[in-house]
Amino acid sequence: MNIAVAQSGGPTCAINASLVGVFKEALKEPQIDAIFGSVNGIEGIIHNHLVDLKTLILTNDDMELLRQTPSTVLGSCRYKLPDYSEDDSVYKKILETLEQRQIGAFFYIGGNDSMDTVNKLSEYFRQESVDIKVIGIPKTIDNDLCITDHTPGFGSAAKYVAATMREIVRDSSVYSIPSVTIVEVMGRHAGWLTASSAVLHALGETAPHLIYVPERSFSLDAFMRDVRQEMAKHKAVIVAVSEGIEVPEGVQSGVVDNFGHKYLSGIGKYLEEAVRKEIGCKVRSIELNVMQRCSSHLSSKTDIDEAEAIGSEGVKCALNGDTGKVMVFRRVNEMPYTIVIETTSAANIANNEKFLPDDFITPSGNNICDSALSYFLPLIQGELNTIMEQGIPKHFAIQESVLK
Amino acid sequence: MNIAVAQSGGPTCAINASLVGVFKEALKEPQIDAIFGSVNGIEGIIHNHLVDLKTLILTNDDMELLRQTPSTVLGSCRYKLPDYSEDDSVYKKILETLEQRQIGAFFYIGGNDSMDTVNKLSEYFRQESVDIKVIGIPKTIDNDLCITDHTPGFGSAAKYVAATMREIVRDSSVYSIPSVTIVEVMGRHAGWLTASSAVLHALGETAPHLIYVPERSFSLDAFMRDVRQEMAKHKAVIVAVSEGIEVPEGVQSGVVDNFGHKYLSGIGKYLEEAVRKEIGCKVRSIELNVMQRCSSHLSSKTDIDEAEAIGSEGVKCALNGDTGKVMVFRRVNEMPYTIVIETTSAANIANNEKFLPDDFITPSGNNICDSALSYFLPLIQGELNTIMEQGIPKHFAIQESVLK
Repeated sequence: MNIAVAQSGGPTCAINASLVGVFKEALKEPQIDAIFGSVNGIEGIIHNHLVDLKTLILTNDDMELLRQTPSTVLGSCRYKLPDYSEDDSVYKKILETLEQRQIGAFFYIGGNDSMDTVNKLSEYFRQESVDIKVIGIPKTIDNDLCITDHTPGFGSAAKYVAATMREIVRDSSVYSIPSVTIVEVMGRHAGWLTASSAVLHALGETAPHLIYVPERSFSLDAFMRDVRQEMAKHKAVIVAVSEGIEVPEGVQSGVVDNFGHKYLSGIGKYLEEAVRKEIGCKVRSIELNVMQRCSSHLSSKTDIDEAEAIGSEGVKCALNGDTGKVMVFRRVNEMPYTIVIETTSAANIANNEKFLPDDFITPSGNNICDSALSYFLPLIQGELNTIMEQGIPKHFAIQESVLK
Repeated sequence: MNIAVAQSGGPTCAINASLVGVFKEALKEPQIDAIFGSVNGIEGIIHNHLVDLKTLILTNDDMELLRQTPSTVLGSCRYKLPDYSEDDSVYKKILETLEQRQIGAFFYIGGNDSMDTVNKLSEYFRQESVDIKVIGIPKTIDNDLCITDHTPGFGSAAKYVAATMREIVRDSSVYSIPSVTIVEVMGRHAGWLTASSAVLHALGETAPHLIYVPERSFSLDAFMRDVRQEMAKHKAVIVAVSEGIEVPEGVQSGVVDNFGHKYLSGIGKYLEEAVRKEIGCKVRSIELNVMQRCSSHLSSKTDIDEAEAIGSEGVKCALNGDTGKVMVFRRVNEMPYTIVIETTSAANIANNEKFLPDDFITPSGNNICDSALSYFLPLIQGELNTIMEQGIPKHFAIQESVLK
């Protein structure tokens, strides 16, 4: 039997570690022969564009380097499968590729939308009585998947956000005049990543002094009141804000991607301008931008190790005969932090979102409770031994020509 | 004899290392008693706001932690001394503080403007026959000081920019559609930091495919032509651009976008919009913002060690009877990279700027020559053993109340 693996959705620091997990485990299993990588997610399967990973990942050093490489080494896509009862033409193409390549199991590393693909594809195969297993390996820096305690990729993003926020705190503290610094963090609907910056409170930092997440309604008046209150207490006020907080109409540019997600930008800048106009103090905004999802040089070892492990477990799951499942983490102990890897039906995860629990957010809606920090802290622990070349972190890359 | 040290100008990752250099060397010198830190640069001297550093930096561990802490632990200022022939009132206040505290040497860690202070203050003391030495310790991520081979702080910023640029390259490579990514780097007049991203070419990366620096005039037409040419060769085109390039009139002063928002930070977003309008491809802009000057978690060990050494040498210089001098690096050998620390008159450095040499920039003006990489590469070598607490880099901080 051969297998195929693909990566989908937005980049994270941990997607390649999950690929390594699948690859390593597959190497160990005598019943698995070729390990194909699908180029650009499910699109590679649709267009029969696969690469033989055993010819590309040659050594243990390659695997370690790949674990430390951000983004998706096989490329990604934002392709959403149609309903097969309405149009099964693309399903037939997928099946054709998989059968031609004698692929008995397909592993899809991705977020919400990819788990929709896992769900639909496994249902289609069941209906067609085709024995090809389809297993989902979760990933997203947004941490907004249901069932699982957290998602691979989130811990590294949270570590970057908190570490960078602390450096911004130092940077903001230099001048004697009062200032406001607004840090915009990714998260369209769920505030997990923004909330994770509150771990600094466990390290004795008073910042972030204000944290706004999309789970609470946002009012510019309340925001200004909050900022003024914090300015009375602190010389340099630090605000963390999710890109997805609801602001007055017109701020979001409203471009829509294939999945109907609005293209967002400008919340930080918008609030910066508002503070400048209403308070008139020194104010700046900082967008952490793609750095929060690709700064592998500051990955969480816990995150990367877990991402690899959940990939490995996915292979075992398929070999046990499961299909239409997504691998998930369950936290079985808080101190010491212990997780187990389990499975859930892809239908439970696809097209659902998990939001910050109510009790994570302070009653005033403008910060995160200290009691929530024990959730975040274990996920950002540990560092990799970053492999460097000439002073710069080295990456594993497949030649562009091979992926064409 | 007592001494005083102050930090000035914009934050870098290396200013505190220079402070440690001054402090460590002063501890060794039997003729030095108290080591005062001036709060918020020269303003601390003016207002007699000094702290006793021996009561704040207690152990070798404290010193190592301070070396790894970004920004200025003593605060900063942007104060420029008036001409003492026109108004010497502030000079008298400075002298009053220094004499009251029995300070025989003052060390000012800063950029261009701070070296102007060193120059004026030492001249004033000479004129008044006051025996207080004034020594400048350079710092700036902009690397735009004359005489010195490079400035402390630049190497760490360059390492961050190049490492992050490489991660952005990975992040940009995931989708199958053509894209343009514009990365805006600090540098108002000099393109050193933007140019340093070209070190990726020495590591086998084709990116950045285009690099624009303020040393060359910028034309939007030529830019569009360049981008189209690179898009013909590469799926994901990466552009590095200095914040200070000259763009068509009106952009910096506040052109208004579709939603009535002014372009605040401008250049990156402006070029993003221009590419979207003229080429219509997927395009985004990324501002490296303050992260490029405060990401101590990715400091260059070479930079931090040199910053400490140049601080130490400053103390020796003052004890040798010098004043009105700025410490500088001279590169005496390329392979292996070897520098010596020398002095120059503050008048040679104050109020001057050093630009990229002509032969660093390609004839087409849109990239950096490979022959220039040997200048940049030694400066970004090595990493510190970052001290962590709970998964986040730890910082040295003086309580806000002490600095008040």
